[in-house]
Amino acid sequence: MNEREILTNYVYKMVASLMQNGVEDVVISPGSRSTPLAYAFASTKNISIYRQVDERSAAYFALGIAKAKAKPVVLLCTSGTAAANYYPAIVEAKYARVPLIVITADRPHELREVGAPQAINQISLYGERVKWSAEFPIPDDAPMTLPYVERHIARGVSIATTAPFGPVHFNVPFREPLLIDFQEELPKQTFRNSLVGQIAPSQQAKELLTAVINETQRGFIIVGELALGTDLQQMWAFIRKLKWPVLVESLSNLRTNVPEDCGQYIVSTYDALLKSSIFKQQVAADTVIRFGAQPVSKFLTNFLTETLPTNYIVIDEDPMFRDSAAVSTHFIHTAIGEWISELSIENTVFSEEYLLKWRTSEELAAKHIQSYQEIEQDEGAVVRFLIENLPDNSDLFVSSSMPIRDIDTFLLPTKKDIQVFANRGANGIDGVMSTAIGFSEARKEREMYLLIGDLAFLHDVNALIATRYQPCKLNIIVFNNDGGGIFSYLAQSTVKEYYEDLFGTPTALSFADVAQMYEMEYMGIEDFKEVNKIMEPQKNPLRLIEIFTDRQQNVASHRKLWQRIQQELEQ
Amino acid sequence: MNEREILTNYVYKMVASLMQNGVEDVVISPGSRSTPLAYAFASTKNISIYRQVDERSAAYFALGIAKAKAKPVVLLCTSGTAAANYYPAIVEAKYARVPLIVITADRPHELREVGAPQAINQISLYGERVKWSAEFPIPDDAPMTLPYVERHIARGVSIATTAPFGPVHFNVPFREPLLIDFQEELPKQTFRNSLVGQIAPSQQAKELLTAVINETQRGFIIVGELALGTDLQQMWAFIRKLKWPVLVESLSNLRTNVPEDCGQYIVSTYDALLKSSIFKQQVAADTVIRFGAQPVSKFLTNFLTETLPTNYIVIDEDPMFRDSAAVSTHFIHTAIGEWISELSIENTVFSEEYLLKWRTSEELAAKHIQSYQEIEQDEGAVVRFLIENLPDNSDLFVSSSMPIRDIDTFLLPTKKDIQVFANRGANGIDGVMSTAIGFSEARKEREMYLLIGDLAFLHDVNALIATRYQPCKLNIIVFNNDGGGIFSYLAQSTVKEYYEDLFGTPTALSFADVAQMYEMEYMGIEDFKEVNKIMEPQKNPLRLIEIFTDRQQNVASHRKLWQRIQQELEQ
Repeated sequence: MNEREILTNYVYKMVASLMQNGVEDVVISPGSRSTPLAYAFASTKNISIYRQVDERSAAYFALGIAKAKAKPVVLLCTSGTAAANYYPAIVEAKYARVPLIVITADRPHELREVGAPQAINQISLYGERVKWSAEFPIPDDAPMTLPYVERHIARGVSIATTAPFGPVHFNVPFREPLLIDFQEELPKQTFRNSLVGQIAPSQQAKELLTAVINETQRGFIIVGELALGTDLQQMWAFIRKLKWPVLVESLSNLRTNVPEDCGQYIVSTYDALLKSSIFKQQVAADTVIRFGAQPVSKFLTNFLTETLPTNYIVIDEDPMFRDSAAVSTHFIHTAIGEWISELSIENTVFSEEYLLKWRTSEELAAKHIQSYQEIEQDEGAVVRFLIENLPDNSDLFVSSSMPIRDIDTFLLPTKKDIQVFANRGANGIDGVMSTAIGFSEARKEREMYLLIGDLAFLHDVNALIATRYQPCKLNIIVFNNDGGGIFSYLAQSTVKEYYEDLFGTPTALSFADVAQMYEMEYMGIEDFKEVNKIMEPQKNPLRLIEIFTDRQQNVASHRKLWQRIQQELEQ
Repeated sequence: MNEREILTNYVYKMVASLMQNGVEDVVISPGSRSTPLAYAFASTKNISIYRQVDERSAAYFALGIAKAKAKPVVLLCTSGTAAANYYPAIVEAKYARVPLIVITADRPHELREVGAPQAINQISLYGERVKWSAEFPIPDDAPMTLPYVERHIARGVSIATTAPFGPVHFNVPFREPLLIDFQEELPKQTFRNSLVGQIAPSQQAKELLTAVINETQRGFIIVGELALGTDLQQMWAFIRKLKWPVLVESLSNLRTNVPEDCGQYIVSTYDALLKSSIFKQQVAADTVIRFGAQPVSKFLTNFLTETLPTNYIVIDEDPMFRDSAAVSTHFIHTAIGEWISELSIENTVFSEEYLLKWRTSEELAAKHIQSYQEIEQDEGAVVRFLIENLPDNSDLFVSSSMPIRDIDTFLLPTKKDIQVFANRGANGIDGVMSTAIGFSEARKEREMYLLIGDLAFLHDVNALIATRYQPCKLNIIVFNNDGGGIFSYLAQSTVKEYYEDLFGTPTALSFADVAQMYEMEYMGIEDFKEVNKIMEPQKNPLRLIEIFTDRQQNVASHRKLWQRIQQELEQ
């Protein structure tokens, strides 16, 4: 075989193995060293190619597709700093448990660490931030090379898609010349199937959980963001059976699509309620069972650390189970599966009164939240408007920092089919727009709304480059409060002399010019009365709605809401 | 001591130690966990604080300051993906040998890997891409803590500023509460001085080099980008003494400020000349001595691998010496110092004719380059215009990819004081604008021009956020050829079916809207006749000049130039 045949066989074997293991989408950034793989992907049928020149945004775009599909997505870039630009999204994928297959083309060994251009040390480039990393061999015609490629790809995708999901990294060296022969047909598979398992609880775990539940008088469930692909019907079945109050974070997606017979158990306003010391005493629990990630609410965490439940059982598919409050008493290692609705639950000792306390308090808080829009004209009021008016079959992608907190405060349980997503692995404000665009590309059948602050919008403004390469659809709502709104809620804001410089960081920018540059429909909303424009039909698949708000006013009006709830609660 | 006093003492000790070890500049991105250090820096006199909310751009901004000053610059960010955004610039700093002191605030141990927000594994976050990384202790009042802080800061800065320069990383955990007491005076120093050494050649190396030089009939020097802070006068003294042809890359800054008596040795057109096989045979050398990084010219590399000089001596301050051509025969580990002009050089056997061959060929090529503007109307012609017209005391920051190649092709030796800089550690097109802005901030006494392509401009458009926080001055010249121009020169471009999608990647964007958003002066140039507008006085400290060019035309006209030179050379 000549060099070109060897290279051709090698890259098509990679592509075939990736597809065979469930990869449907590839996000490519342009570069020379990755040419053989880029051309192999581009010339293959039945695989979707997306393009984005900013690798940081490309990686978040891939993360968005993977989140939407709960399937592994491939990233491909050239050698050098291109690969380092993937790092933020890889970190997010690790902690948010999203399967990314990161392929970095590399120079061959003779061009590494010798001053060759675009050659950096790419071995273990992402350290412990990936689940696994493999250095591939330089393509050759040894009989073991293609079997290695085929099975190592299978191993990598298996690792990425085994709970907890996460990123893996293949570093693939190529020698020049980089051109391949184009092939119509992919090579036949030799290795035929890789079947990953699911983590089930031990018998002991199920017995323990049943025993604790059956002895509990006062208890509640917490549900945070669940693993990708979790079947929510199993959660609902469990809730129905248990009949306990369930504190659900918006990202659990149990606040929406709520079945008729489950509404009575759902508590969505716990963050507001648990600001009251009196209420906290009233609802101190014997048992808490948590599924999914820890909710964003600091007041929930404080409540747990102050009241110390006798049993705080954390259920997590990762042996590195999450519990930053450090008050867990038991850890059950498992994924959510049918087993949760098959437990022998008796409901004989559980206190009806305890459920009622949560129930009536939820209703009380909900009333104040529902009327918020009549009283206040701030970001919270817009969020209320948005939630009330979003159509069925909508996805709401929410930025970290204030938007996710506002959604968590203002999203009351509803039967509507709205699904809420965010990047909460590392809670960064970077890459949010790219993730949302990737997400919406993978769920074109639903309407997508992105809620984001001005700094997060600006940080990832390059997300919009993707719209030049593929026909995207997006409705972006930016709260422009000219800077870092979240810090106004923190103690830092009391230092008047340096606060605005270091935390407020106002840019005095607005984004009409961005919309014009990217040929987007634009609406600027200065007056709260115009908020209903958000629901006007889109004239352009890309729309940017910029709502000008005020950081001080946001803090003040949010605090007033919490005071109103607390006052009535404590009466 | 209470917690707040402990925290206060700790962070001011860090600040004091950094300053004592030569740090004058800090680039801060907003975030909560880094509050104690941010407030300590902000409240300290005689240290310059720069702000940038996009950490990727912030890190390149710091890199720019460090390059301009040849001094260590501090980066400070909060925990989480913020820190991962620094990675591309850290990689560049490692390979470009630039001293960066990267400080990432971290959550304390009890909040790590337990699902706490914005907590990721930051230990060795940058792997082997930093020279050293240290995990600092949680602030406490143990008597050994402040001495540790003081000396470890000294160690870190020493490592960063020892040849080869490079980045170091301090990961610093803080517990809440994060507020400090503001102090007017920095704490007194205990550890008083850290004096790093310079790498000198061994006696054996000097003897070898002298012997080889004195035996050489046909030889030349190559000078690439030199280490930060290199005294160019020593290079000139050596050139004067040796009287050999000197092939100087534009980034060596030996093509400008050329002393009267050295001009005859300078060869700037070697990339064009060495495209001729006949010429290559004529100038095959016995001895080649290289200082600095390997030049960008592929034809120079090919020449070396084809003609295999008997002695190819690489002089480098890093024991991992650079030589991707892999034809070096000797390596001398040393920095450039007075020793190079103190060698006992005899000049008795060196061929005058050999020097003359290079000399006359340089003049021949220079003639064609000088008349380029009269014949062609492409990016090269603009570069020629720019070089001819740049005022004395100008810095020219050049993007990777085509701009650096064009500067290298079209910059002929001149007595003018123009200095040329680029990010050539990893040759990325990312972060170029941020580096240029940081660079110009540190050299306000000079005029700064940035030459950049449209994809690189777009990749780092967030560089401009920095202009909202500090009064920057910049003259940006963007070649907008709508995509990746460099790939048109490569074999990839022959694959018509997929080429534009994967490599051309046109965005059909132009940047007038960016200029408007950032309140910059803007000029769009479609007609080559208007190129002289580049030299019009700036009406605004921030100016964007967008020159619309054509990728195909660029390739064609460059190739014609090289043909003209080759033809005349071979006649």
